[in-house]
Amino acid sequence: MDSKARAKLVARFRVTAGKGFRLRDIDPADTDGFRGDKADAEAQMAEGMARLAELQDKLYAQDRWAVLAIFQAMDAAGKDGAIKHVFSGLNPQGCMVEAFKAPSATELDHDFLWRHSLALPRRGHIGIHNRSWYEEVLVARVHPEVLARQKLPAALESKSIWDERLEDIAAFERYLGRQGIVLLKFFLHISPEEQKRRFLARIEAPEKNWKFSAADVAERQHWQEYQSAYEQAIRATATAAAPWHVVPADHKWFTRLVVSETMAEAMEGLDLHYPEVAPEERARLQAAKAALAKED
Amino acid sequence: MDSKARAKLVARFRVTAGKGFRLRDIDPADTDGFRGDKADAEAQMAEGMARLAELQDKLYAQDRWAVLAIFQAMDAAGKDGAIKHVFSGLNPQGCMVEAFKAPSATELDHDFLWRHSLALPRRGHIGIHNRSWYEEVLVARVHPEVLARQKLPAALESKSIWDERLEDIAAFERYLGRQGIVLLKFFLHISPEEQKRRFLARIEAPEKNWKFSAADVAERQHWQEYQSAYEQAIRATATAAAPWHVVPADHKWFTRLVVSETMAEAMEGLDLHYPEVAPEERARLQAAKAALAKED
Repeated sequence: MDSKARAKLVARFRVTAGKGFRLRDIDPADTDGFRGDKADAEAQMAEGMARLAELQDKLYAQDRWAVLAIFQAMDAAGKDGAIKHVFSGLNPQGCMVEAFKAPSATELDHDFLWRHSLALPRRGHIGIHNRSWYEEVLVARVHPEVLARQKLPAALESKSIWDERLEDIAAFERYLGRQGIVLLKFFLHISPEEQKRRFLARIEAPEKNWKFSAADVAERQHWQEYQSAYEQAIRATATAAAPWHVVPADHKWFTRLVVSETMAEAMEGLDLHYPEVAPEERARLQAAKAALAKED
Repeated sequence: MDSKARAKLVARFRVTAGKGFRLRDIDPADTDGFRGDKADAEAQMAEGMARLAELQDKLYAQDRWAVLAIFQAMDAAGKDGAIKHVFSGLNPQGCMVEAFKAPSATELDHDFLWRHSLALPRRGHIGIHNRSWYEEVLVARVHPEVLARQKLPAALESKSIWDERLEDIAAFERYLGRQGIVLLKFFLHISPEEQKRRFLARIEAPEKNWKFSAADVAERQHWQEYQSAYEQAIRATATAAAPWHVVPADHKWFTRLVVSETMAEAMEGLDLHYPEVAPEERARLQAAKAALAKED
């Protein structure tokens, strides 16, 4: 994909100023911005993966920036598949995926960012977080018992807790940017109809059974609450430095293409390059070459 | 010490609104607010330690709040001694000291809060940090080579880096408060004359030699730069929720008394109590008692 087409595709789903954002303005079945079909998209993906691997190599060698991609979505929207298909060409030395499940007792004993901070990528690395600190304003907001398990002092469970958490998250993300951690936030936006189809497929196909839990159907009852919590989170935290990418997720091939092109665009914007060798070091390289030649 | 005398002593050195704060308004040799001599102070300290141990027990049982005391100071101002004398009566199960030295290569590969976040206390615990994230706006500000080692992308080493870091620190501390981590920040304020006396004592006494390094004398050359960096840090980050305590440090006994009373006052303000047992649980306790009695 040429850089102009890529920029247009990425910009279509990027939210850099959250205020006034409405989830319903994005169609989960959208595949626009891409003139082609699934086969074309897959060819583009292959190109994109090769490009990402090159960029990763420079990121690692330069050892200044880090990149963190976080994935949020309703169940079955394709987080795992997107991670697998977009990043499988990367060198695992320099790329780490962390999948956040329900917090352990030790994690609950700490502030909510604790386990996420631990998992932040080092300089030169790409971090991928499958779910993230946003769960603290999503599942914890929809299910009061999840908040109760956090054992906050009663005085701190105020009405403004969600606004405060969103403010804290926005400040944390601003800090990460200043530390050289480039943050890309993906919300894979699926329709309830497509989720239903995928759940049924998981129930029907024995090799997909492990991906399904009866609890997933119960969560569907909270669909509107989750959509509202997502919308409020995106409104409060989408900035130029830490944009959200709200990616249509009813067509997996399109989701993956947008994620891949978004990663490539962000990393190309960093002007990554192999470290240059200073003249005196270059002289040492020549001396080493001469010493090696003498060995023969 | 009765609660009124304690409140007066603590308030004298507490900074809750940083704007306009001037370090020179605090006399490092001050021992005021305490009507007594060194022996009286030590008797009060013993009382204070017992009180702190009681409060710690409730903090641990209640398992909601955490307390974090951070200590910053010029060399030889008495951080280690204060920690030893104020906290030695605590139960080590529920109290952890972390002394932050120069960062390791792994730590430098992360954002600057990373190693400090890892060491945050759990609920029910008291954390003590000997040096802290403030080193990032102190030693890193006075010594450009310390900042250079952090390998930030060049684009992020802007003129506003110190203001940005102080803003990030203030936001981080606001977040900690909202998470139930009560933060107490101590700056032990020593005069250059007293530091010189203590350095000489460390050089003269063989058993104190290990505490002295020739580099400590070199650091004295940067005295004014450090004082200015401290003043700016306190101005930017002293708030009601995360106050600074600027404690005169020319008299060790007085420093320790103020730290001890400040800890006790803050913890008493939390209304700590042993968890109450619900009526149905009380019935179970009675049933257990009856079962135990039957064993005889």
